[in-house]
Amino acid sequence: MSYTYEYPRAALTVDCIVFGLDEDELKVLLIQRGIEPFEGRWALPGGFVQVDESVDTAARRELREETGVTDVFLEQLYTFGAVDRDPRERVVSVAYYALVNLSDHRIQADTDARNAAWFSVYDIPELAFDHARILEMAHERLRGKIRYQPIGFELLPPKFTLTRLQRLYEQILDTKLDKRNFRKKILKMELLEALDEVETDVAHRAAQLYRFNADAYNEKIRTGFNFEL
Amino acid sequence: MSYTYEYPRAALTVDCIVFGLDEDELKVLLIQRGIEPFEGRWALPGGFVQVDESVDTAARRELREETGVTDVFLEQLYTFGAVDRDPRERVVSVAYYALVNLSDHRIQADTDARNAAWFSVYDIPELAFDHARILEMAHERLRGKIRYQPIGFELLPPKFTLTRLQRLYEQILDTKLDKRNFRKKILKMELLEALDEVETDVAHRAAQLYRFNADAYNEKIRTGFNFEL
Repeated sequence: MSYTYEYPRAALTVDCIVFGLDEDELKVLLIQRGIEPFEGRWALPGGFVQVDESVDTAARRELREETGVTDVFLEQLYTFGAVDRDPRERVVSVAYYALVNLSDHRIQADTDARNAAWFSVYDIPELAFDHARILEMAHERLRGKIRYQPIGFELLPPKFTLTRLQRLYEQILDTKLDKRNFRKKILKMELLEALDEVETDVAHRAAQLYRFNADAYNEKIRTGFNFEL
Repeated sequence: MSYTYEYPRAALTVDCIVFGLDEDELKVLLIQRGIEPFEGRWALPGGFVQVDESVDTAARRELREETGVTDVFLEQLYTFGAVDRDPRERVVSVAYYALVNLSDHRIQADTDARNAAWFSVYDIPELAFDHARILEMAHERLRGKIRYQPIGFELLPPKFTLTRLQRLYEQILDTKLDKRNFRKKILKMELLEALDEVETDVAHRAAQLYRFNADAYNEKIRTGFNFEL
């Protein structure tokens, strides 16, 4: 006896939002579509889920195939299930997002993608499908997360200046923060260790370097905080 | 030209976790399955997504059909996409959760459900499929949410005592809270309005009634807080 569901079914896809920080900007990884529909248009990396792979696996596979990016922690964001979001047919998409240190990841376009590149989240070309909305929701999740949990371990190099950390907050929150106030709040959280080192190869006066205290960082992920602007 | 995805596809379902608070306990709405697989076993209300309805609509429809519950705000929780989570075939399920004031919702079993009933989240029968895990994740989400945002508007009657509000926190967090400390923290948030009324029909000394200040409540949803235990 079979209990199979014998009706027409939606196709299932995954889409990946990979955020990276370069020196100054919050960026997102996009691919240029090599096939119809939306051929030539930029889009989030992603594709169809195979019937014999988990949805999580499909997300990692598509990201690797389309951009060459591997070894990132993809967290599920949301499932987009509107009826008409894809011109081909009924397609439901599970979106995932990740934070990476941009310089760690060499990207290369592959398979269905003509091209892969990082774009500033504040200067995005017109995207295929409902990907602009998916990207907006991912950015919103990031803005929410930064208020409750420490963020930056994945985005920053191991040692960084307070200016760079502030720039990360400003980029995610899309707002200018007061330097003195930011430093006071961040240092009060006791997440950071001041190092006995300053930055090198800079034209201006070299600033002190910090790193995250891993124990304090993980504890704050557990207990949370409220970072009030 | 067609761009249809011509490979075998997963079936897509929805599952609903509806939390309700009765006088003393956090409860969840379950249905007893009337069909195989897991016939007779308790499960989360849910079912297959039709190809011409959105996933959100499917969740509301299945909840209504299987339990009679309508007019609740279902928020998407997570999509469960492991390969072997359903013995029938490949099924991916999008889970939704909601908070309701239990006394507002008369439940009635319908269609594929033999029975529908509220169970204490701390006394759940063996569930069908991976529903125990889905329920656990929903409870975890609720525990996380209560730390960052006000909760209770949907779960409590319009006027309530501080004891009842404390009981809500204790039920969600599964821990005993110190009465004095809880009151101090909650009142400091300025979410509540003390009413010029006390509870009626009680054997013990009647306690003062409170209600949420809607403006303050909505503001706290926006700005968040950190409710440290």
